[in-house]
Amino acid sequence: MIEGPLEHVIRLFSGLPGLGNRSARRIALYMLERRGSVMMPLANALADAAENVKSCSCCGNLDMGDPCHICIDERRDKSKICVVAQVSDVWAIERTGAYKGQYHVLGGLLSALDGIGPEELRIARLVERVSEGTKTVKEVILALSATVDGQSTAHYISDYITSSGVTVSRLAHGVPVGGELDYLDDGTIVTALNSRK
Amino acid sequence: MIEGPLEHVIRLFSGLPGLGNRSARRIALYMLERRGSVMMPLANALADAAENVKSCSCCGNLDMGDPCHICIDERRDKSKICVVAQVSDVWAIERTGAYKGQYHVLGGLLSALDGIGPEELRIARLVERVSEGTKTVKEVILALSATVDGQSTAHYISDYITSSGVTVSRLAHGVPVGGELDYLDDGTIVTALNSRK
Repeated sequence: MIEGPLEHVIRLFSGLPGLGNRSARRIALYMLERRGSVMMPLANALADAAENVKSCSCCGNLDMGDPCHICIDERRDKSKICVVAQVSDVWAIERTGAYKGQYHVLGGLLSALDGIGPEELRIARLVERVSEGTKTVKEVILALSATVDGQSTAHYISDYITSSGVTVSRLAHGVPVGGELDYLDDGTIVTALNSRK
Repeated sequence: MIEGPLEHVIRLFSGLPGLGNRSARRIALYMLERRGSVMMPLANALADAAENVKSCSCCGNLDMGDPCHICIDERRDKSKICVVAQVSDVWAIERTGAYKGQYHVLGGLLSALDGIGPEELRIARLVERVSEGTKTVKEVILALSATVDGQSTAHYISDYITSSGVTVSRLAHGVPVGGELDYLDDGTIVTALNSRK
């Protein structure tokens, strides 16, 4: 059977993360009942984003312009660079509104299992940014996840950067705000106890 | 803040059934890393489907042509009409390959709570099809779900149609194939017992 446009939409949707065949069919039917209000706007928005969203050549963030709006914002603190694995981490930190410095998106984490080495990540560009701006950059904050890959990436980067005299800090580990002790794993409790204030 | 194309894609995605903000963000990032292979094809497929997929004026199925490929297929049995609530039900029955008759998609179920009356559904068109083809149509199979709404819709339709001398049948209720008795609800076990063969 030749694949019609509807089957094509369903096949493409079912390949997106978190979606399967059944949810893709459900979404396709939902959209076909709302062609003018959902389906065509989504088609246009996808084409628009695919064409106009750029990866910032400085920090790796996704934005309309290159450099991105965070890199060119004069009100932001140029002395701090927050290193994150993914663009979604930038969004998560920006949502808090608590950080007013620069970012650097690595595009992943070092992983021996997945064959991701330093060349696959934007580590060289980070070292470049730090050494270019030794007078302005005072602190590199490693906001990487508390997993084996995250911590080994953090180690690797701090080995590179500490030699340049810039302060390297990491996110604090401890009990999540609103978290109940009873439900926490032992590792987190031990870390929280050891770094008590 | 002005909404950029990326935020626009995320907002539209997060409104789709089964997706929220977090999954929409994840999908948007996934697609931006695969613009040529996923994002642009999806944009084109959506526009293509929105333009070319039609609702069949005879049975209500979604297809490229009107009437749909099932209605014009000469090899299919014109004496049976299987009445279903949604297009997805047509797909589910077609996947089994066990049914070779016609379909009629109601577009929903009667529901006093949601304010869906007979005028909102394609019931008049079904009655028309049955009375137009009294010589060819011999059986109407009500394949509606075993819920209150499904059964009241089935009642309503069979009241209309039995007068025209056409046989009205319903899907059998019982133990699902592969189902364990221990996990079944009482209603299903009682029904299965009463309609034992």
